[in-house]
Amino acid sequence: MTGTAAFQDLYPDHWAHCYGCGRLNEHGLRIRSFWDGDETVATIQPRPHHTAVPGFVYGGFIASVIDCHSTGSAAAAAHRAAGGDPAVGPYPRFLTATLKVDFLLPTPVDAPVELRGRIVEVKGRKVTVETTLTSKGVVRARGEAVLVKVPADWEPKG
Amino acid sequence: MTGTAAFQDLYPDHWAHCYGCGRLNEHGLRIRSFWDGDETVATIQPRPHHTAVPGFVYGGFIASVIDCHSTGSAAAAAHRAAGGDPAVGPYPRFLTATLKVDFLLPTPVDAPVELRGRIVEVKGRKVTVETTLTSKGVVRARGEAVLVKVPADWEPKG
Repeated sequence: MTGTAAFQDLYPDHWAHCYGCGRLNEHGLRIRSFWDGDETVATIQPRPHHTAVPGFVYGGFIASVIDCHSTGSAAAAAHRAAGGDPAVGPYPRFLTATLKVDFLLPTPVDAPVELRGRIVEVKGRKVTVETTLTSKGVVRARGEAVLVKVPADWEPKG
Repeated sequence: MTGTAAFQDLYPDHWAHCYGCGRLNEHGLRIRSFWDGDETVATIQPRPHHTAVPGFVYGGFIASVIDCHSTGSAAAAAHRAAGGDPAVGPYPRFLTATLKVDFLLPTPVDAPVELRGRIVEVKGRKVTVETTLTSKGVVRARGEAVLVKVPADWEPKG
């Protein structure tokens, strides 16, 4: 993995409040994503109450972590595509336009999940990311997300 | 709306621990869904920390509530299709096979969201549900979920 700062560490403070991935959201999941070659990777331990049925993670957790890993991956990919040093922010902020998740197998709640993202396309303000979610060595879910860069007029003035 | 029991109130206890919709998950969102004619409806107030960027709900919350409202809607639709009284459980438990969410507009964090589900198909163990998520009178997201009934061998023995 490249460096020790996660993608989410390199958002400006005003974009760092997401429940899923904001380093400044004290209640949130605080997902941290990194480059691993041309893939992006994040590892998250579900909390014991993140169950669907006893022993297994609920679908919303899986969708959430795929979503947030995808927005981070989109930011990192766009930053890199623009010639930015991956270790130096600020990263741009992306929001999700569409998210599709295939739940292939139940995901245990008692083990970390590993997310691996593949950048399918960086095109203008839009990035497409495919993600696999693995637990205990087995792929449990696949995601595809289309992310769009936050409009310029959303940035704080001054 | 039909009666005062939510779909999720009519799951057996062992299927009532979901973070999104389980009445027995003390940490969770406790989504409650009801029939409104042939549509299913649920209303949820996001918590202040469920933000993506300041003022707006994060995508994972939207995906989670659409997912859980869809599993509840699938259970209710399957129960009704089998001739069951909607007010009398136990309802069957469904899990999500695929979930697709289109995020159309930002969703404010300071207002309740209304979910409305339409049962597209009940076929064997599989139910398809389309959902709209509305806030402040405007549709903000659309979801499509394919849900599958929990396998019989997952039911507790005895």
